[in-house]
Amino acid sequence: MIEHALADPALVQLAQPLQESAYDIVQNDTLLASSLWANVALAGLAILAFIYMGRDITGRARLIWVAVLLVPLVSISSYSSLLSGLTVDTIVMPEGHALAGQEVFSSWGRYLTWTLSTPAILVGLGLLAGTDFTKLFTAVTMDIGMCVTGLAAALIVESHLLRWVFYAISCAFFLAVVYVLLAEWPADAAAAGTSEIFGTLKLLTVVLWFGYPIVWFVGVEGVALVEDPAIVSWAYSALDIFAKYVFAFLLLNWVRNNLDVVNSNPSLLGSS
Amino acid sequence: MIEHALADPALVQLAQPLQESAYDIVQNDTLLASSLWANVALAGLAILAFIYMGRDITGRARLIWVAVLLVPLVSISSYSSLLSGLTVDTIVMPEGHALAGQEVFSSWGRYLTWTLSTPAILVGLGLLAGTDFTKLFTAVTMDIGMCVTGLAAALIVESHLLRWVFYAISCAFFLAVVYVLLAEWPADAAAAGTSEIFGTLKLLTVVLWFGYPIVWFVGVEGVALVEDPAIVSWAYSALDIFAKYVFAFLLLNWVRNNLDVVNSNPSLLGSS
Amino acid sequence: MIEHALADPALVQLAQPLQESAYDIVQNDTLLASSLWANVALAGLAILAFIYMGRDITGRARLIWVAVLLVPLVSISSYSSLLSGLTVDTIVMPEGHALAGQEVFSSWGRYLTWTLSTPAILVGLGLLAGTDFTKLFTAVTMDIGMCVTGLAAALIVESHLLRWVFYAISCAFFLAVVYVLLAEWPADAAAAGTSEIFGTLKLLTVVLWFGYPIVWFVGVEGVALVEDPAIVSWAYSALDIFAKYVFAFLLLNWVRNNLDVVNSNPSLLGSS
Repeated sequence: MIEHALADPALVQLAQPLQESAYDIVQNDTLLASSLWANVALAGLAILAFIYMGRDITGRARLIWVAVLLVPLVSISSYSSLLSGLTVDTIVMPEGHALAGQEVFSSWGRYLTWTLSTPAILVGLGLLAGTDFTKLFTAVTMDIGMCVTGLAAALIVESHLLRWVFYAISCAFFLAVVYVLLAEWPADAAAAGTSEIFGTLKLLTVVLWFGYPIVWFVGVEGVALVEDPAIVSWAYSALDIFAKYVFAFLLLNWVRNNLDVVNSNPSLLGSS
Repeated sequence: MIEHALADPALVQLAQPLQESAYDIVQNDTLLASSLWANVALAGLAILAFIYMGRDITGRARLIWVAVLLVPLVSISSYSSLLSGLTVDTIVMPEGHALAGQEVFSSWGRYLTWTLSTPAILVGLGLLAGTDFTKLFTAVTMDIGMCVTGLAAALIVESHLLRWVFYAISCAFFLAVVYVLLAEWPADAAAAGTSEIFGTLKLLTVVLWFGYPIVWFVGVEGVALVEDPAIVSWAYSALDIFAKYVFAFLLLNWVRNNLDVVNSNPSLLGSS
Repeated sequence: MIEHALADPALVQLAQPLQESAYDIVQNDTLLASSLWANVALAGLAILAFIYMGRDITGRARLIWVAVLLVPLVSISSYSSLLSGLTVDTIVMPEGHALAGQEVFSSWGRYLTWTLSTPAILVGLGLLAGTDFTKLFTAVTMDIGMCVTGLAAALIVESHLLRWVFYAISCAFFLAVVYVLLAEWPADAAAAGTSEIFGTLKLLTVVLWFGYPIVWFVGVEGVALVEDPAIVSWAYSALDIFAKYVFAFLLLNWVRNNLDVVNSNPSLLGSS
């Protein structure tokens, strides 16, 4: 009887996972794993470089330094967490999706940790522009809204329609962030004497941040034009490398070479 | 052998969910679903109206506008999330509960998102009263405590006693919020010249917010005097409509007609 | 047939949990349960005492009082939540761990709620030292990083290596907090005239906070030198008693006896 029961395929399915776990998928796919390890390594290098670059940063510029240093600190935690299996899962897509009924690899931890790292980017950028509390509060709350609703879009498994409703809500929050970056902060940056570097970083940020919803759209979680999770993961990872470490390096390097400009800026958020 | 195993009711139960999912419950109950769709629609209208109403709001009143705009933005995300099945579940009630051992529909996502929307309400109200940082910090932290412990009360499935312990803790946090609203902010509002509208909104908020713990108490998660989840859901939804969109409309409408009063207020949190 | 199926041990395992739940473990282990109840009782007493002690605290000292009052408020919620079974679990340890393959009791809710209570401690301490926004922002963000990555270390079940990677990241965040406490705030406290009490509380905090990673290291989640979850739980609980309630009592008692010193301090964060 016992032997028979164990030989029954339907019961064997109940006793063990149907497929390999998300952790195993990462372990068994070198390209996918490399997209995560590359960011662990680069975030680690960025942390060391930024700590070294910060040794002479004093005055209110120091708040910019701390905010920007948080970016690779969150990032190394985020990518280690994806590698550990804690924040990746296989998600069964709902009816209507291109891969309906199939298990799709989701690195949903990315959306969770962007909730912490992208506000740090905006705080650094807003302080550089010498903006006021209201505009920084607007940018940061809309950004958090963007990330949290993006996380919801990734996790919904019972309604294809509502995955896209959340995609649309997340994009609407994103446009509010873009509005602050393009229509409000440039004037503040001009008044603060930081226009040149702000213009570069603003452009870098807006262009690269548009990449994320595009990758989501074409990737396995969206319309699945690209079905290989390793390629989707590398696309996000490449965006992160430029939008996070390169961005942060350019910002910090300018700040430490222009301490007098930053520290003479009567920003509401500055402190000695 | 296989046929016999599949015919065995005990095994069939293992191979499929015991009951319909929380998502299916919403889909199959028009009254319940309408309590969620109504708020999606009204939150959407409120967002459009508030963006329109904000076009002329300048100065430090703009921070009030952003805070209040967050209320329907969080709300539309919250109700879409309930509809998607992501933040609803069926919870098996512990021994001692009126519905012990039964699966009860829980829209626990409400408590989670109130953690974000109710602080926005209090920030708007506190800025209107021209209060200081200490009192606003008190109101917001106690409010977050109220929502997080309310979420815990809803999610506990192994101890009936501790569901009510958390209900009591949540109510204690609520009373701290009520204390700030009734005993501290009226004097600040008088000094700021916003007493009339503050008095109205304070009353509206305190009366409606008392409704939430009452609904919890009588509803399926509490003593289960009301056992229909659709009625409980509509009670919460109706409270949300008045405590969120009507409240926010009254606040914003007064602010845009009294910009000079708000912008001449030397509030600690104001910014140009 | 049905009788045979139910008598089959393999099937019975499928139909019920393999072992007792984390909630049952707490219920059936008096020593473990007492480590939680002791803190519920002491946090409750601390709340009552602190509310009584705060009746005469005015001016900017009131912000210190609110921050410090949050510590036992979060703590009573945290320990009630552990007792309710909501934030405890049994975790199957990964290959390489001393208890690999075994179910280990984890009170992971501790790490989650420290994310809320330890920033409140640092806000109280930073305000006492009259520090500026930049340094307080640094201490609080590094502290939150410490708690969130500590939570990740506790929850990872698929990679032994990455449990320790997160342990190391969490310790690195901790060292950043220690740096602010030992190298930056003493000078601020000297300028604010609060050196004596700050020195005591700084020492108390640094020494006790080093205890937490040590307990993690030797406990069931680390190298498992100590395998009894009740002893590990009591170690954390004893640390909490001194690092939270005793710390908070000493801080509040000094503040209410030296209101003039605190309220004459031109701290950036103070408010009337």
